Amino acid sequence: MRASVLRDGRMVLRDDVPEPVPGQGQVLVSVTACGICGSDLHFAKHGDQMVKLTREMTGMPIEGGLPVDVAGDVFMGHEFSAEVLETGPETDAPPAGTAVTSLPVLLSPKGFEPILSSNTTIGGYAERMLLSAPLLLRLPDGMDPRHAALTEPMAVGLHAVNKSSIKADEEALVIGCGPIGIAIIAALRHRGVESIVAADYSQMRRELAMTMGAGRAVDPARESPFDGAEPAVVFEAVGLPGIVNDVMRRAPMNTRLIVAGACMEPDTVMPLFGTAKEINVQFVNAYDYQEFAESLRAIAEGDIDVGPLITGEVGLEGVGDAFDELATPETHCKILVTP
Amino acid sequence: MRASVLRDGRMVLRDDVPEPVPGQGQVLVSVTACGICGSDLHFAKHGDQMVKLTREMTGMPIEGGLPVDVAGDVFMGHEFSAEVLETGPETDAPPAGTAVTSLPVLLSPKGFEPILSSNTTIGGYAERMLLSAPLLLRLPDGMDPRHAALTEPMAVGLHAVNKSSIKADEEALVIGCGPIGIAIIAALRHRGVESIVAADYSQMRRELAMTMGAGRAVDPARESPFDGAEPAVVFEAVGLPGIVNDVMRRAPMNTRLIVAGACMEPDTVMPLFGTAKEINVQFVNAYDYQEFAESLRAIAEGDIDVGPLITGEVGLEGVGDAFDELATPETHCKILVTP
Repeated sequence: MRASVLRDGRMVLRDDVPEPVPGQGQVLVSVTACGICGSDLHFAKHGDQMVKLTREMTGMPIEGGLPVDVAGDVFMGHEFSAEVLETGPETDAPPAGTAVTSLPVLLSPKGFEPILSSNTTIGGYAERMLLSAPLLLRLPDGMDPRHAALTEPMAVGLHAVNKSSIKADEEALVIGCGPIGIAIIAALRHRGVESIVAADYSQMRRELAMTMGAGRAVDPARESPFDGAEPAVVFEAVGLPGIVNDVMRRAPMNTRLIVAGACMEPDTVMPLFGTAKEINVQFVNAYDYQEFAESLRAIAEGDIDVGPLITGEVGLEGVGDAFDELATPETHCKILVTP
Repeated sequence: MRASVLRDGRMVLRDDVPEPVPGQGQVLVSVTACGICGSDLHFAKHGDQMVKLTREMTGMPIEGGLPVDVAGDVFMGHEFSAEVLETGPETDAPPAGTAVTSLPVLLSPKGFEPILSSNTTIGGYAERMLLSAPLLLRLPDGMDPRHAALTEPMAVGLHAVNKSSIKADEEALVIGCGPIGIAIIAALRHRGVESIVAADYSQMRRELAMTMGAGRAVDPARESPFDGAEPAVVFEAVGLPGIVNDVMRRAPMNTRLIVAGACMEPDTVMPLFGTAKEINVQFVNAYDYQEFAESLRAIAEGDIDVGPLITGEVGLEGVGDAFDELATPETHCKILVTP
């Protein structure tokens, strides 16, 4: 079958990937849509560094997904919706034809494998893939499966907002309005937060932030997002060095800083800024099952309209070009791959 | 009168300091004992850098204490006990002879001034100083006023522990067993935390940590404090670059890291460690009035025995040498200045 794989830092189309066969507890699905995630772009660029850091960390609970051999082909794609084709032996699963999504995790005899970046576990940039029957979520009737592919990034935003314990009457500042920043803004509105300031250098992204619920969108090249604002919670959704220190320098006392951006390089801060203002820095990653399910429900019921986020759609043969295009954020937010 | 002041990076004895005169709301006190704090050592070494960083930070609520002109004489000393001598006009205060301590803050017509490092506001390294009548706390009957001088550092430890929201059945790791690390250990025991691991290169400090309530004290040169430990909360009480990243690399998932050390230099971390493990970093500083009062009570009632912390006592003329001695932590924890 066909799949787009990472090879030597580029996404290339293969048509010789062996057909996956569902084992016990698994289902074979055909991928309906799969979003391209910033973390996939990161991995394409910094895969070797990510593997090295993972090895350095003791206690990191990612088995099977990382380390990955970046010299070999890497399957990616973890924001997907799909349709059930076939069920493994002795497995209780929805019938063929059911539209589903799932946490990007594959349960197998090898244990618990993230569907994230792997030499063996196929992700959503493929015609077909395996999913775990106990983790399947049926799409509510009438839901656009393209929208369901955004359940995962929206769950990331919801998790970041939940970890912040923000109250509806507190002010939020979201720095960076890529897909994760936008997901955070959507989740803040979903949680009833009224006062949301967004910051991004891109006009298109600022407009999208306003569409999704920000009350004000600031161009950091022209004004500081802290001017006239006293955010209780600052969400960092850029993932580049320097942002955390800049927030710590300019933020008010007792700021809760949620680091949702995934910075792959060393970052330097002046700890004294944090000390003087008793800043709290919460790093966040992923989500839990409840947050994933709530995110699906919120999209299905129209509480969160993800339509404006989808700025492009490509087939498997277009994944490589889409990765290139996403490097310049002015024109795109989320590109869906529809195999 | 006599006072020891910071001049060109050294503590020197002056005998020509003008006698302070209490204004409305103030009392004149004679200093009984004043502890030498690591932050005073920091200021003596890095004062110009601290002033520069303070200026960089907008919104930092320290007025009057910093910025300081480090080219002029600087008064310091904020861990003190004292005896009331004289009360300012129209001021309600305890009678002369009352033994007191106070939050190191002076209320004056200029506003709110920390008693920390100032060209004008005299601190505890002096024969006499001014305090604010509304902030005075009487020493309970029979309390050793030398012990009362440790109320302030013990309150710093109590505040760090309170900010961690640690539960009695959670494990704590305290990295660095100088006065703040020791105060944290004492506060952890005061809060009923059973499982406390301490780490310090100095054998004397490790022994003190055990005396104050640690269950195990580790020499990081010989073994990792994370070996065989799964701390829920890690307290950083060293204040040097590199420690935060090292903790983030080695700590378990969801660690709450309390940064109590005051690092005056830039510090570099790998954010990916924090992201992968959803680490929470809480910078802490100072304490509130309740924590200060609770700390005084705990010392007075013997819940916290600060006696073992006091490893030296000098007059005003010995402050300069004491600062030098405290640079090598093997022999000392807390030196009291008894003017």
